[in-house]
Amino acid sequence: MTERIKAVLDDNEIPRQWYNIAADLPKPMPPPLKPDGSPVGPQDLAPVFPMNIIEQEVSTQRWIDIPEPVLEKLLMWRPSPLYRARALEQALGTPAHIYYKNEGVSPAGSHKPNTAVPQAYYNKVFGIKRLTTETGAGQWGSALSFACQLFGLQCRVYMVRISFEQKPFRKMMMQTWGAECLPSPGPTTQTGRMILEKDPNTPGSLGIAISEAIEDCVTSKDTRYSLGSVLNHVCMHQTIIGLEAKKQMQKFGEYPDIVIGCAGGGSNFAGISFPFVCDKIHGKDLRVIAAEPAACPRMTAAPYVYDSGDVAMMTPLLPMYSLGHTFVPPPIHAGGLRYHGMAPLVSHLKRLDLIEAAALPQLECYESAMLWARTEGFIPAPETSHAIAATIREAKRAKEEGRQKVILMNWSGHGLMDLTGYDAYLAGKLTNYLMSPDEMAKSLKSIEGLPKPPAL
Amino acid sequence: MTERIKAVLDDNEIPRQWYNIAADLPKPMPPPLKPDGSPVGPQDLAPVFPMNIIEQEVSTQRWIDIPEPVLEKLLMWRPSPLYRARALEQALGTPAHIYYKNEGVSPAGSHKPNTAVPQAYYNKVFGIKRLTTETGAGQWGSALSFACQLFGLQCRVYMVRISFEQKPFRKMMMQTWGAECLPSPGPTTQTGRMILEKDPNTPGSLGIAISEAIEDCVTSKDTRYSLGSVLNHVCMHQTIIGLEAKKQMQKFGEYPDIVIGCAGGGSNFAGISFPFVCDKIHGKDLRVIAAEPAACPRMTAAPYVYDSGDVAMMTPLLPMYSLGHTFVPPPIHAGGLRYHGMAPLVSHLKRLDLIEAAALPQLECYESAMLWARTEGFIPAPETSHAIAATIREAKRAKEEGRQKVILMNWSGHGLMDLTGYDAYLAGKLTNYLMSPDEMAKSLKSIEGLPKPPAL
Repeated sequence: MTERIKAVLDDNEIPRQWYNIAADLPKPMPPPLKPDGSPVGPQDLAPVFPMNIIEQEVSTQRWIDIPEPVLEKLLMWRPSPLYRARALEQALGTPAHIYYKNEGVSPAGSHKPNTAVPQAYYNKVFGIKRLTTETGAGQWGSALSFACQLFGLQCRVYMVRISFEQKPFRKMMMQTWGAECLPSPGPTTQTGRMILEKDPNTPGSLGIAISEAIEDCVTSKDTRYSLGSVLNHVCMHQTIIGLEAKKQMQKFGEYPDIVIGCAGGGSNFAGISFPFVCDKIHGKDLRVIAAEPAACPRMTAAPYVYDSGDVAMMTPLLPMYSLGHTFVPPPIHAGGLRYHGMAPLVSHLKRLDLIEAAALPQLECYESAMLWARTEGFIPAPETSHAIAATIREAKRAKEEGRQKVILMNWSGHGLMDLTGYDAYLAGKLTNYLMSPDEMAKSLKSIEGLPKPPAL
Repeated sequence: MTERIKAVLDDNEIPRQWYNIAADLPKPMPPPLKPDGSPVGPQDLAPVFPMNIIEQEVSTQRWIDIPEPVLEKLLMWRPSPLYRARALEQALGTPAHIYYKNEGVSPAGSHKPNTAVPQAYYNKVFGIKRLTTETGAGQWGSALSFACQLFGLQCRVYMVRISFEQKPFRKMMMQTWGAECLPSPGPTTQTGRMILEKDPNTPGSLGIAISEAIEDCVTSKDTRYSLGSVLNHVCMHQTIIGLEAKKQMQKFGEYPDIVIGCAGGGSNFAGISFPFVCDKIHGKDLRVIAAEPAACPRMTAAPYVYDSGDVAMMTPLLPMYSLGHTFVPPPIHAGGLRYHGMAPLVSHLKRLDLIEAAALPQLECYESAMLWARTEGFIPAPETSHAIAATIREAKRAKEEGRQKVILMNWSGHGLMDLTGYDAYLAGKLTNYLMSPDEMAKSLKSIEGLPKPPAL
């Protein structure tokens, strides 16, 4: 009999509550601040988010019920399968057992719909008719388009112009799901018009797109804004990944020694890891590793500061590891990992030494992704390749040490919309980007004069 | 409690045998013929296929064991989930229960790996080192590339030149899985050189690509050819779809009144339907519908004849519904359904009135695919949209008649690599293609003079 390589869960085994790690933090996290240094209150966020989401953002309740209409939609692709990567283990000759959670099975191809669906739902029941958001490479924009369609909300996505032009397929996905996808900057907002006047050929940036989406939101009727990562409620929505993984690991009779996820804004990493970090807080012995690009080394090289979430400083100041909000990301293919900051909750856990971080250079990531595709079959997203590279490092270490480590990794999405990166890699056209101390110092200038987080 | 919308099977519930409908045919199927009209024997196929596959091709054994190494690889994505399309039912207001088998979960995104994996395996154990094949839009080429990588075989794919140039992403998938993908016609074969000499700017065709792949196979060492549809063994490998679906329908406590699949070469239709046609042969009352494009109306308009599988007449003559091997398919987006013939087994069942066929025009298919994407979430391949359109027709009829029909459909693959078709549809640029009697008569000229199949 062939050995089991995956564990599936029946529809009735889907978790019915999200896990909120805010309830278990050993030390409190500094609050978000207004530009003048005073704490941000729920009312300050009300023009941008509906109050039911703001309540989740600030909640310290450990378990939060997933509403039935949300569960019904999550069942479209959840519970997602958990695999044991036996073919990869064999190729590496490692005694490690490598497990991965396949989040690429969602309609949009990544973990992003896990939060897009509840966000669309909460806006819907709050009476909101329309959502705005921004997207870089398009993963988040397509996930929110899908979710808005399910609940009958209008959706407008501001997509960084250079991606809009070079990667038309994500735009087509959004339109197929009924959303409007506009190149950013564009003439529909004041911000967009101002920037286009100065530079009609600007490629755009995520910072500009956020500014446009927020401006659209606050100047439109029945409209709110939606964010795909970084915030507490987004991280919480993703914990369904780790909660399912726990049940599935039990079917294999194992518990991880190491949990690994890639980290851009931090939400997929939070999703796989927070339920395990909870165990660690309560005494369990395990390592938790966030894999970030060496080109955007937040938790491996940048300071823990208060910084804005966007270039135009329209968001509150968040306590996080940050490269500075004027950081210009290098052109690595992992578009979803090119953010200047890191989710406050993830940053706080790093500061508390409950998690570690690893910096992975682009070429090692593609080499790892190629090995993955040729053993485990599924072609990973460039973001996911960072988690794979970190996993392979640990599996090789286990081999050197002759120890049978159990590794659990989040396979955050497939790379079928990102094949040009593989093409460039196979043609030898890719390179590593490492941040020099000079670049770091320059990038960090933008946080000068901002409030400092208190000592732990 | 939210209602179940899907049924999953555990790894240990995967079917361990394929179903061979050749064992249950109420009347024998005419044999394949050589050009001179004499029957094709196993030895005639030996230069092109390994003998273990030829044995399957001619077998009349009802159940054939799936080898353990094949099962191990199929478990990478199988058993695939069976869904109840409740959101679509609701949108249609139909009393019908609509179930679908999601074959889009494979690494290559369609049902094609179900046969690519066993074909690569059988070639491997027969001592073959290298496979050649052709591909149109790229679904089959990418599936075989994936399968060859798993078993350490070299793979060369001749891809129709116009697709090679216009749709580079499937080529990138093949290369990521380690295969060689060449534009066809090309300078590596005599056929290719001849055609290029006459017309250096030819867009190529599937017929030319088949000729190149076979020429490469018969003139190279340790090389065989692999076909992704039409043949008996290919249809049999796909029956794992229907066998799983039977177990999963039981979990819902239902049995289908109607089984539907789209039909290009016929293999995904065979896969979902043959295990149910078996029940029909043994007395069960159900309808089985093959959905083909109105632009390529084989079973709905063409005659049952002996015809060649390719333009250059390098294959044996097969008994099938055919538009004639010189048929020039119109440019519908469903590249996988633009074949001139239909699998002999599927054709034979149609002739025996065990199955029916429906012709679906392109616009109805895209309209149906849009409704699907906006209710069930997953974006279907243009081929799959034909099965969806046929399903929606039956669901609407059930509504008119006020009868609670149970419909089972094969969702053969996702459309993430085919978004340009959706873009064209949304821009109002698509049109229907219907074959005129004149075009049909012209196309059928190519079968004049070929042997005729005997009466039933």
